[in-house]
Amino acid sequence: MDLKQIAKDTAKTLISYLTYQAMRTVLAQLSETDPPRALWLQQFSARQNLQEGEAYLRALLAERPDLAYRIMTVREHIAAEVLDYLPEMAKTGIQQANMEHRRSHLERLTSAPGSLPVTHPEAGSPLQNPTPETE
Amino acid sequence: MDLKQIAKDTAKTLISYLTYQAMRTVLAQLSETDPPRALWLQQFSARQNLQEGEAYLRALLAERPDLAYRIMTVREHIAAEVLDYLPEMAKTGIQQANMEHRRSHLERLTSAPGSLPVTHPEAGSPLQNPTPETE
Repeated sequence: MDLKQIAKDTAKTLISYLTYQAMRTVLAQLSETDPPRALWLQQFSARQNLQEGEAYLRALLAERPDLAYRIMTVREHIAAEVLDYLPEMAKTGIQQANMEHRRSHLERLTSAPGSLPVTHPEAGSPLQNPTPETE
Repeated sequence: MDLKQIAKDTAKTLISYLTYQAMRTVLAQLSETDPPRALWLQQFSARQNLQEGEAYLRALLAERPDLAYRIMTVREHIAAEVLDYLPEMAKTGIQQANMEHRRSHLERLTSAPGSLPVTHPEAGSPLQNPTPETE
């Protein structure tokens, strides 16, 4: 497991996602103040691959630099405001989700129609209908 | 701009991405130790939408709980190892990328065929061969 490479790739994904959120923020602002420009940005963004944040900005810079600069400024602002909270939020989110998955998997096992009656292992009665889940 | 909602959505995206990286890690391990299971996981994952990490795990839990549990454990481990570095990496990455976009946009402006020759306003003689770097 190359944790350094994973960290780098994750940072890149994170930046692209913040670029997408910045685009949406600028889009919402323009919808209020300048609907035709909002429409243009919406159509442009629908044609682009927003999973590649930097390629998106390069393409936008070539066509409407004013909008590209605005999105760059907004993503820097969003980054400054939210990034520091993310490690804790993501760690807690993963722990809770893992716990929830384990809980509901156990529930499914114990409530499955063909599941084992809950007996002591040494009880001696053969299994009626063993399912793949039971082990 | 609803920063709280953006932070929540970003954490969710981040968790799904770490789930994807955990799947890839488990896949790489299985390729060494148990190629048939690696193949199964690869085909299963190709059919699923990995952008929804929890839905992916729920589907996997229903078919191969052992693999789902392993991915859950690995993503928790990856999260513990990389998350704390991400805010700084992403902030620096955004600042550098923004700077790079501004620089190359300026370069394109000054090297465009129709652009003004770069001269001192009072010099009077146009430069023979203005390069993008001159300013």
